[in-house]
Amino acid sequence: MKQIITLITDFGLQDSFVGVMKGVIYSINPVVKIVDINHNILRHNIQECAINIKNSYSYFPEGTVHLAVVDPGVGTVRHPLIVKTKHHFFVGPDNGIFSYIYENEDCSVYKITSDDYFLDAVSSTFHGRDIFSPVAANLSINHKPEKFGNVISEYVSIELKRPKRDNNNIFGEIIYVDTFGNMMTNIENKEVNHCDEIFVNEISIGTLSASYADGEPDKLIAIHGSNGTVEIAINQANAADRFKVFPCVKILKKVPDNKVSNE
Amino acid sequence: MKQIITLITDFGLQDSFVGVMKGVIYSINPVVKIVDINHNILRHNIQECAINIKNSYSYFPEGTVHLAVVDPGVGTVRHPLIVKTKHHFFVGPDNGIFSYIYENEDCSVYKITSDDYFLDAVSSTFHGRDIFSPVAANLSINHKPEKFGNVISEYVSIELKRPKRDNNNIFGEIIYVDTFGNMMTNIENKEVNHCDEIFVNEISIGTLSASYADGEPDKLIAIHGSNGTVEIAINQANAADRFKVFPCVKILKKVPDNKVSNE
Amino acid sequence: MKQIITLITDFGLQDSFVGVMKGVIYSINPVVKIVDINHNILRHNIQECAINIKNSYSYFPEGTVHLAVVDPGVGTVRHPLIVKTKHHFFVGPDNGIFSYIYENEDCSVYKITSDDYFLDAVSSTFHGRDIFSPVAANLSINHKPEKFGNVISEYVSIELKRPKRDNNNIFGEIIYVDTFGNMMTNIENKEVNHCDEIFVNEISIGTLSASYADGEPDKLIAIHGSNGTVEIAINQANAADRFKVFPCVKILKKVPDNKVSNE
Repeated sequence: MKQIITLITDFGLQDSFVGVMKGVIYSINPVVKIVDINHNILRHNIQECAINIKNSYSYFPEGTVHLAVVDPGVGTVRHPLIVKTKHHFFVGPDNGIFSYIYENEDCSVYKITSDDYFLDAVSSTFHGRDIFSPVAANLSINHKPEKFGNVISEYVSIELKRPKRDNNNIFGEIIYVDTFGNMMTNIENKEVNHCDEIFVNEISIGTLSASYADGEPDKLIAIHGSNGTVEIAINQANAADRFKVFPCVKILKKVPDNKVSNE
Repeated sequence: MKQIITLITDFGLQDSFVGVMKGVIYSINPVVKIVDINHNILRHNIQECAINIKNSYSYFPEGTVHLAVVDPGVGTVRHPLIVKTKHHFFVGPDNGIFSYIYENEDCSVYKITSDDYFLDAVSSTFHGRDIFSPVAANLSINHKPEKFGNVISEYVSIELKRPKRDNNNIFGEIIYVDTFGNMMTNIENKEVNHCDEIFVNEISIGTLSASYADGEPDKLIAIHGSNGTVEIAINQANAADRFKVFPCVKILKKVPDNKVSNE
Repeated sequence: MKQIITLITDFGLQDSFVGVMKGVIYSINPVVKIVDINHNILRHNIQECAINIKNSYSYFPEGTVHLAVVDPGVGTVRHPLIVKTKHHFFVGPDNGIFSYIYENEDCSVYKITSDDYFLDAVSSTFHGRDIFSPVAANLSINHKPEKFGNVISEYVSIELKRPKRDNNNIFGEIIYVDTFGNMMTNIENKEVNHCDEIFVNEISIGTLSASYADGEPDKLIAIHGSNGTVEIAINQANAADRFKVFPCVKILKKVPDNKVSNE
């Protein structure tokens, strides 16, 4: 039996929506553990949902079922999906929320067509309860994904922004801002070492910092982020609040990477 | 053993109140599962609590204990109650939060008088911790409700607003607004079919929509809601924000219901 | 096996941080129960974290591991700690968040130095995931604290504000405000009885009230708080909102305590 179902939604914590999904899940699998990842995804924000999935799934044990419901198309023809990777399962609507999974993992994507696993009455507004939760719960009790529908080869991906390169420069952008106002770029940590110089909107902020606390008061710093990409932050303050438009981030490579010993 | 205790409170998530209740529960029943339904009920709002209970309880397995603490009278003479229905138990103060249960289910209502199941020291401000959590936990380990007190026949109900009828019209009102600003009316889905015309403050918004996404930008729609009553919504926007006072909703029945085939 | 790990952080509920910590914990101990105490500690507020720990830990069963991550010094030289008391374990950074535990319990304090129990890659920004969660999870599967590092005798405490006394007066201050705006003082309930007169900023608010509901509209009351110290509150309103600066609270003892029978 799969032991864990994780939940990501934009349902918030002001209503009974999330609790009801858990009731549906436990009614099917009374012994599963349910872990809330984030229910405060900005309403209908597929990019934010995709990044929360990317940042969390790999920390869970093999066989975990990741249920994500950010679903502006609820009740329309967009399909419900099961995505199977080597170690995990993902359940949710076909609107791009699994784009990073498609990119990072070998995936089998199943279009859910069998309503055998849905609640008896399916509403047009709450598929999180009526379709996705019972599908995830039935997956967790070892129903095979092929019982829910067939493998498909066409499904929706969102464009994943990539840094650009030019001579010794890497040009990145901000793809996510966390609760603290730390701004996650799309430049991978491993591409930036402690000799490089970092520019925010073409103004140098110096080289990488080793910790948030290394930053001087009110000064932007760059740091290797915990999710694998470089972050722009301010020690004990909110960096994102300084900007009305997210800044460009440029890395000036001072020494080729293969000349620098690892930290 | 009962496997699940659900929690609804107005305690918020900014303090340790809810976590402490879980500590008390697990100290008595280490194997129960605790499911948060909603801790962001508007402070002391009995109507909102009652609707969250109504919308959630039936999705949980038989034997679930539903613990609800919205309790402006904490420390006064209002009684703590256990409500037993065919499939569920409810625990909370006698102030009307269980009104929809009284209406929808055959209920036995017990006034909790035995302090055998309370914490040793009962504060005057946190009965969620000192009385209701230990009672719910003890119920979940199969102590019979009659051990906590006697059945009573008088208990508090709030007025449940009902739609009014007049010739071919049904007049309803808004009884709840969800996180997304969707406005739940008190008119049951089954009373409104796709031939009927819906009016909000006497202005027609047309007939029922099949999904949120069917709505044109910025236009109010009516839709069969997931909790059994008609909702007024706007596709990808907040309908409630359009109103300073909740609107009246009128259904003009175009064809008698028994002449319309089911969708 | 220890059955419960509690969590207190300032990570909020807008990101995947807390969910990821749970993934790490369940990967190590699949059968533990994880209880959220509070993830909305004001960013970097050690005092608020310390009080949330004080108010919650004793309601959990023997052997519970309490994990607290409010950590402005993440990535710097501040040490990770395990604190062992008679009944509980605490895991978190050495910055004073465990000050009330040091004061109230016999403690053995271990400085965590062995990285055997850390994730393979330790980031400089998310020790909640990379160090503290795996340490707590490994403690919960009965690895002894001495395997993580040695006992130390010097660790950080914050100053715990104490009431002052002068003849028949006790002078206290506000040390915490809850979600409802109830203001917790540092004066213990047992020091104030129903004969005493309470002053807020030198203005009398009368004697102790027996419940919130006893208070007249808009009038400040004092009440024995559920966490062991006297609270200043307003019935069905937010007392803290009345003040731009937290008030002083004075108790005028009318009768020596030993002359008053217990309530």
